[in-house]
Amino acid sequence: MSASMAQDGLEHGGRLGAARRAFAGAPEPFIDLSTGINPRPWPVPPLDPDSWGRLPEPEAELALRVAAAAAYGAATPDMVAAAPGTQLLIQLLPRIFPQAGLAVLGPTYAEHAACWRAAGTAVAEVERFAALFDAPAALLCHPNNPDGRRVGLRALHALADAMAARGGLLVVDEAFADLEPELVSAATLLPHPALVVLRSFGKTYGLAGLRLGFALASAAGAAAIRGWLGPWAVAGPALAIGTAALADAPWRAGEAARLAAEAARLDALLEAAGLRVLGGTRLFRLAEGDAAGWHQRLGRAGILTRPFAQQPRWLRFGLPPDEAAWARLAAVLR
Amino acid sequence: MSASMAQDGLEHGGRLGAARRAFAGAPEPFIDLSTGINPRPWPVPPLDPDSWGRLPEPEAELALRVAAAAAYGAATPDMVAAAPGTQLLIQLLPRIFPQAGLAVLGPTYAEHAACWRAAGTAVAEVERFAALFDAPAALLCHPNNPDGRRVGLRALHALADAMAARGGLLVVDEAFADLEPELVSAATLLPHPALVVLRSFGKTYGLAGLRLGFALASAAGAAAIRGWLGPWAVAGPALAIGTAALADAPWRAGEAARLAAEAARLDALLEAAGLRVLGGTRLFRLAEGDAAGWHQRLGRAGILTRPFAQQPRWLRFGLPPDEAAWARLAAVLR
Repeated sequence: MSASMAQDGLEHGGRLGAARRAFAGAPEPFIDLSTGINPRPWPVPPLDPDSWGRLPEPEAELALRVAAAAAYGAATPDMVAAAPGTQLLIQLLPRIFPQAGLAVLGPTYAEHAACWRAAGTAVAEVERFAALFDAPAALLCHPNNPDGRRVGLRALHALADAMAARGGLLVVDEAFADLEPELVSAATLLPHPALVVLRSFGKTYGLAGLRLGFALASAAGAAAIRGWLGPWAVAGPALAIGTAALADAPWRAGEAARLAAEAARLDALLEAAGLRVLGGTRLFRLAEGDAAGWHQRLGRAGILTRPFAQQPRWLRFGLPPDEAAWARLAAVLR
Repeated sequence: MSASMAQDGLEHGGRLGAARRAFAGAPEPFIDLSTGINPRPWPVPPLDPDSWGRLPEPEAELALRVAAAAAYGAATPDMVAAAPGTQLLIQLLPRIFPQAGLAVLGPTYAEHAACWRAAGTAVAEVERFAALFDAPAALLCHPNNPDGRRVGLRALHALADAMAARGGLLVVDEAFADLEPELVSAATLLPHPALVVLRSFGKTYGLAGLRLGFALASAAGAAAIRGWLGPWAVAGPALAIGTAALADAPWRAGEAARLAAEAARLDALLEAAGLRVLGGTRLFRLAEGDAAGWHQRLGRAGILTRPFAQQPRWLRFGLPPDEAAWARLAAVLR
């Protein structure tokens, strides 16, 4: 047996168990603002027990891909691969589409670089978009996590073309794009021979435990990903819920408007507390200031936020789930 | 972008949509005997909505591995990797543990050979267990699907040792082992440097749509698999349900007894119809005879069975879910 080394665990938000140990005695319920997951989930209807009991059928998987293509702006379901969470796609892209090297626009979600490195790829983190053009392959998050940085579609197109010209790859992770109606998705550039776009289901729909994510690519690229994942990678409930939720454009539009207002409300609270808001998306805000101090004070008050070891003055805030949580957050920030 | 070829779809049981098209006008409800999935699921309790909403926490994943280690006879949870269905493990094993060649004891579940071939490995199907010793790596299903063939633990141990001596791999797929109390699992040979044992959750517990499966291996081997799958490959509901169900040894013992009686009842029906029962497990029976004729007659009566293109006289029967289904099956077989 030979095997590549197992990956080390990275720091992630959402670890309430660890937070409860770190802030023992903090008031309950703990408020988790450490992730960028919509705190109010899409309303899940009662499930057909067959979705648990039976093996998912090919027709159900195709229906999900049809709904995803429509929601994300891919021309055909052939250009869609569905996975049990985007993380698994992040894990496997370096294996499915091996590259001579990768430049990542950073700082950004750390799993990308970690997974490419685990596959043996040399990874360079670059700070300027233009520097991506020099690499064999390129990756960016769009909008970026945690600072919300965006790139124009024309620039993405030029980058994808440059990658195609050298037989390379451009991965655009649009995990937080769904609720940013003014953002034009890189998926509109498909089919493109070098482009893979990632979309996350769980964040937008507040159903992160369901595990559902998508890759959008050329028909050949998407077929390669589906071939690696095999016939039943997505669970029956995720197929049923995903297909229905992705077709619910009115809910998505309502959430985009509601969350825009809530993000503005959060920004005002953070600024009033002396933090500087650097950016973000409608599902999280990035603040700069005494991050360690605020993380501790909020933690002791039962509110978990997301610090960044490499950026010690940054603290990321998700959106409070209800008025009680807003009140507790405001009381600490006051 | 470069990518290996997407895999062609193989024929599988459980495709009711296709069956309804093939047997248009057959009486409903269609009875699906084309799989080896327990028709009476483990009773799923109401789920905590957090299992859908939140990202699964590391503690929940560890709890599942603790339960799986105990249920399957692995010494520690370090020796367990949990996946969203065993199929994904079958897809990825050829990538995680690449081999110079593989011998498969056949005929058996076709996805194994297909996935190794898709990864570029030369695969030989051999009919005799002894022939596995000659290959760089070996794979068998235990008990075998569809004929139920078993191998003694001493023979498995010798084969694992032979593979270890050449730096190879032995994969033992025990998808149908849970309800065969007299079968000694290859997992009892762990830790062993060459051995990977696969266990399926959905078949035994009648929850195939949930997508949950396991690899048992040395601590290093299991860590390599976990590293490929990443932190959240298994959905929150699957973690919760899997942890509880794997701890339910009384339910499992009851099912083993109940299904032994039902398998005997099915054998008697098949033999009375002039079919010869070749073997199977407590979740399916393999019959020999006019398979094409019976598949057609049963299909027109709304009962789906599993034929095999390469073995035209074989027909596999799952267990009827209730007395109404038994009566409809008996009426056709009479």
